[in-house]
Amino acid sequence: MEEYPSKLLGKAIDQLNTLPGVGKRTALRLALFLLRQSKAEVTDFGEAIIKLRTDINYCKQCYNISDEEICGICSNPKRIDEQICVVEDIRDVMAIENTAQFRGKYHVLGGIISPMDGIGPSDLRIEELIQRLERDSVEEVILALSTTMEGDTTNYYLYKQLKDKNVKVSTLAQGIASGDELEFADELTLGRSIINRIPYESTFAK
Amino acid sequence: MEEYPSKLLGKAIDQLNTLPGVGKRTALRLALFLLRQSKAEVTDFGEAIIKLRTDINYCKQCYNISDEEICGICSNPKRIDEQICVVEDIRDVMAIENTAQFRGKYHVLGGIISPMDGIGPSDLRIEELIQRLERDSVEEVILALSTTMEGDTTNYYLYKQLKDKNVKVSTLAQGIASGDELEFADELTLGRSIINRIPYESTFAK
Repeated sequence: MEEYPSKLLGKAIDQLNTLPGVGKRTALRLALFLLRQSKAEVTDFGEAIIKLRTDINYCKQCYNISDEEICGICSNPKRIDEQICVVEDIRDVMAIENTAQFRGKYHVLGGIISPMDGIGPSDLRIEELIQRLERDSVEEVILALSTTMEGDTTNYYLYKQLKDKNVKVSTLAQGIASGDELEFADELTLGRSIINRIPYESTFAK
Repeated sequence: MEEYPSKLLGKAIDQLNTLPGVGKRTALRLALFLLRQSKAEVTDFGEAIIKLRTDINYCKQCYNISDEEICGICSNPKRIDEQICVVEDIRDVMAIENTAQFRGKYHVLGGIISPMDGIGPSDLRIEELIQRLERDSVEEVILALSTTMEGDTTNYYLYKQLKDKNVKVSTLAQGIASGDELEFADELTLGRSIINRIPYESTFAK
């Protein structure tokens, strides 16, 4: 435990140290950086962070972060109601939006099932997804979670919840990434890409 | 430029993005982490940072960060006035204090001369150092700056300012680091360590 010459500095370092990926040494570097900024700049910085947490809203339909009651995607008349893409958090929404390949809407779970981190199904917005299916004219649920053990577990749990709901349940294609050299692909991915091979014609004009 | 679904989120990300070493992607990760914490925790976080900048004090003698008018080192009667160690910032004070090899006091410049960053001698607490020499019974000034081009420039500038002041000006020994293998030492360091070789007896009982 290092000793700091100031309690104010020690407290700020302890707080910065709570951020993921920020150790004591980086926290000290960040604190010294902040001390070199103007009082107005640092006050803006701190207030933007406090406001983020205290004033943030979530879309009442898809639970994505939003300043409005209903987010821009859910309220967009060009987006179709028939497809719902289930994702872990806002980063995945942004990643899929960047592809411009999805015209449906999202459902943000707010995490994935992870017994190690103490996150179970009841901590996620699964009940809200099922209510949405019963309310709206949803035809297909696309499970777009990470291909990790936790993602697979969550996918399977969701599949069991959804299979009697009269919706098609699909998941993202797994296979060789664009630009990858075959010899460096891992066995599992390569094996799945053979099992789930697609008609060559379907790759045209994409 | 990514588009965020919330202005509050966008503003918090822009602010986190100003921190050194934090890109847009990391800023988003940090913002999502903060959203998962309680309101009380995030408020404490933001307030600790604002208070750091608005309430911080610097020791009136050595300009180290301090909650008191005079810092714990300057007010410690066991520390001698005859030696002043000149450093760039508080991290260097902490590093030297950790060695427990220095009984004198410090003078924190608050930076080093760096024309690239627009930092000149007048931005540093050099005038205050000279006033200290004229006021106190200082016998030796130890220049303990980084051995970079900026550090060397600052050392030389300080040397010119101090050489008529009737104090001994010394600087940290440069040489092979403890535990280093000789064959991997760079030429400049190895060359200096030969030129500045020391009596073997002086390495006993250290």
